[in-house]
Amino acid sequence: MQRIHAYEDIEHFDATTDVVVAGFGGAGGCAALEAKRAGSEVMLFESASGPGGSTALSACEMYLGGSGGTRLQKELGIEDSSENFLRYLEACFGPYADPARMRVFVDGAAEHFDWVEALGVRYRRSLFSGRDVVALTGDSLQYTGNERAYPFNEKATPVPRGHLPTDAGHDGGKVVMAALVAQVEAAGVAIEYDARIVGLIQDRAGRVRGAVVRNAGRDRTVYARQGVVLCMGGFIMNEAMTRKYIPQLDAIATRHGNPGDRGDGILLGMAAGGNPINMGEAFVGIAHYPPAQLTYGIFVNAQGQRFVNEDVYLARLGHFALQQSEQRIYMFIDNRYFARPDYLNTEIIAVGETVAEVETEAGFPEGTLQETVAFYNRHAALGDDPLFHKSAAWLAPLVSAPFALVSYSLADIRPPVFTLGGLEVLPTGEVLSPEGDIVPGLFAAGRTAAGIPRTSQGYASGMSVADATFFGRLAGRRAAGGNRLTL
Amino acid sequence: MQRIHAYEDIEHFDATTDVVVAGFGGAGGCAALEAKRAGSEVMLFESASGPGGSTALSACEMYLGGSGGTRLQKELGIEDSSENFLRYLEACFGPYADPARMRVFVDGAAEHFDWVEALGVRYRRSLFSGRDVVALTGDSLQYTGNERAYPFNEKATPVPRGHLPTDAGHDGGKVVMAALVAQVEAAGVAIEYDARIVGLIQDRAGRVRGAVVRNAGRDRTVYARQGVVLCMGGFIMNEAMTRKYIPQLDAIATRHGNPGDRGDGILLGMAAGGNPINMGEAFVGIAHYPPAQLTYGIFVNAQGQRFVNEDVYLARLGHFALQQSEQRIYMFIDNRYFARPDYLNTEIIAVGETVAEVETEAGFPEGTLQETVAFYNRHAALGDDPLFHKSAAWLAPLVSAPFALVSYSLADIRPPVFTLGGLEVLPTGEVLSPEGDIVPGLFAAGRTAAGIPRTSQGYASGMSVADATFFGRLAGRRAAGGNRLTL
Repeated sequence: MQRIHAYEDIEHFDATTDVVVAGFGGAGGCAALEAKRAGSEVMLFESASGPGGSTALSACEMYLGGSGGTRLQKELGIEDSSENFLRYLEACFGPYADPARMRVFVDGAAEHFDWVEALGVRYRRSLFSGRDVVALTGDSLQYTGNERAYPFNEKATPVPRGHLPTDAGHDGGKVVMAALVAQVEAAGVAIEYDARIVGLIQDRAGRVRGAVVRNAGRDRTVYARQGVVLCMGGFIMNEAMTRKYIPQLDAIATRHGNPGDRGDGILLGMAAGGNPINMGEAFVGIAHYPPAQLTYGIFVNAQGQRFVNEDVYLARLGHFALQQSEQRIYMFIDNRYFARPDYLNTEIIAVGETVAEVETEAGFPEGTLQETVAFYNRHAALGDDPLFHKSAAWLAPLVSAPFALVSYSLADIRPPVFTLGGLEVLPTGEVLSPEGDIVPGLFAAGRTAAGIPRTSQGYASGMSVADATFFGRLAGRRAAGGNRLTL
Repeated sequence: MQRIHAYEDIEHFDATTDVVVAGFGGAGGCAALEAKRAGSEVMLFESASGPGGSTALSACEMYLGGSGGTRLQKELGIEDSSENFLRYLEACFGPYADPARMRVFVDGAAEHFDWVEALGVRYRRSLFSGRDVVALTGDSLQYTGNERAYPFNEKATPVPRGHLPTDAGHDGGKVVMAALVAQVEAAGVAIEYDARIVGLIQDRAGRVRGAVVRNAGRDRTVYARQGVVLCMGGFIMNEAMTRKYIPQLDAIATRHGNPGDRGDGILLGMAAGGNPINMGEAFVGIAHYPPAQLTYGIFVNAQGQRFVNEDVYLARLGHFALQQSEQRIYMFIDNRYFARPDYLNTEIIAVGETVAEVETEAGFPEGTLQETVAFYNRHAALGDDPLFHKSAAWLAPLVSAPFALVSYSLADIRPPVFTLGGLEVLPTGEVLSPEGDIVPGLFAAGRTAAGIPRTSQGYASGMSVADATFFGRLAGRRAAGGNRLTL
């Protein structure tokens, strides 16, 4: 497939605008709106028959904080300095992190909340302080990651940063996208559905000058005076790419995304000289809660060893599960705390009146599970987890017979997976070449770009949609000729 | 930096040949020799002042087998079918593997041994059956990977495949390169040193037509009628690239390679439309032997848990060490088996007359190390390792006081690291685009390409140099117009 067309060869453009935005999910919608508000003429193309992207499929928790706190955090008396937010993100992604991108994000995220609320999205001033993937209480603020878990709780003050549209439950993305779509339409962005960007038009000096749009089998050339913004999602639905880039997950993944996550934006960007980074990393989630009481259980591997503090976020559990031999992990739990997880089909593989019975029935070498449980119980009784530092809030001896061992092995769970690799960009969305030069006229945001979240081990719910919408806005403004950020 | 020059803009070429080869290490030397032997005119450019590359820095163990056995294996009575070899490689790299490349390799590796021997490299018909990184006995065949370790020993019949030039010790690479250089010179390849390929010349249809060579600050254009073969090494010496692609290793690595491993070949290939894959993977080695007796010790993590069978190859230990919390690992060993490893500076952090004393001195939670050692000893006495399946040959209770705990943590060891990512190529060396199309006229081999070894967890000594020389030859032949392989 020819993805790059020489500008000099094109005699006629079917349309002309200032900014072309490819993809009408959260990133593309925000990019288009900001470019338009900055005074540019904008054409927005979406390959599906309607807007939404993966943002609409999500609960649209946005992971926001900093600047002393978002308006929502502050009104609930929660303080969150930008430095505290930054320390948390550094703990999440370590050497994988992009420092410049994180700096801009922690300084701008509080303002972003106001911007989203001003779109017309309602956020109730109430905190859900429990442990759940998505609060179903109507509360609009919650903990969504590893904030209260070791070692994160030692590196940054734990604060809730998941900002959730009120009363929307798992459908927050539909609420946010409806508000965004209304604003994009009202602003006068020219929107076309069933229209897929299949090529970029680049001049001999390397500047992207426009795009080729395919609709109903017909290709049209669009000249973009200011630039093209690629917000075409990740690549979890492109099996050739997942086999190549995330082979360790390809066979066990439940592909989590929208059908447009075909990697087209990344491939277009690469063809124009962009650099794909972080391509081997992906979110892999094992939703071991709710109900929260399951956090009292302990996870063991095939050796009967614990390997993680069980109060971590579900993507961190996924990360560590992937490292255990044959990706086999189990929860050991007693009758007092036993429950079925809400979002997983788990299988009980052994039950017994004693730990020894469970150990034997599950086929663990004699003494392994017994020693692990005895050691855990001995310390849990003292409110201590010397090995993995699970919070005292979730520590209690597992002593109420009968006991159960439940498989959470990856091959059984088939966890949701989505990609965290994409084009290397500046915080402004400007696409970089492998040598760090800007590809002029080309921008990317959302999961077409490598964003804030870089590994499953530090992921928190709401990071993707916060990153996509926040940096979508910056890309739209920069494409429209806005001032370069001082970084 | 402008890496691609438009063929149509070049009015004058300073030189013309059939095949340009970039880099005179093992891969480039083999590519040049085969292209020349196939009847092509060949120009070989090397950025250093002499030949060698990383191959010359290595012991030049070549990891070979299949076809019933190489000549050396067969003469020692060792049988190694291609299927057995393939099963082993599949166990090594799992979903990361390139099936087509492995198939060609296991079927052709035995012939490759004959080819290398015919260069004038001497291999003594004797087997070193011990456990060492490089046999220093003059023997020319040895086990160099995980062949005899679980789970590999259950998936393929263990056979030694490390083919080592006799009496060369760690200097086998100098021996092999000297033989190769003599043949390349005798064949009439035009060799130029201090000459670095800084650009590719590509026509508007995408065909690579030549290269730009820089020597003493002067750039010359070279037209290549048949093709350009990039054998310019990996990118371990390019800190901007290692920060981006292997951030998890960047801070702790001892960079293992030659100064030319700057990633230039990968960057040139990307600029021409090639696809970088496996870029996040690297070899990370913790040489926990020789002396082999250290294999009787056990490795524990900061939780006092074992996490690996200690009879694995050093790169598999590195892989698992990287996964332990804070990358802290320790060897527990008794007085009977204690020794200092030959290739590492290790630090004893605790000694004691009892395991309990060591546990306390090292600051492990009470009972952790004691339980681990007691469990291990109980089963080792029976010749069994039910948790990690270390071979019975290395199982003995650790009971001879005093006992020691020795740090092998990554931050202390600073392990050697080199990169395993590169351009995606066909087994013929033809460079592929992200969509799987061939970039005509462009070839890659050695660590400029993604090769047989794809992850540290399955690496064996000799895989890189075998891959580089074997696929260097195929790339040279294909560039010279040889028939496409039937794959």
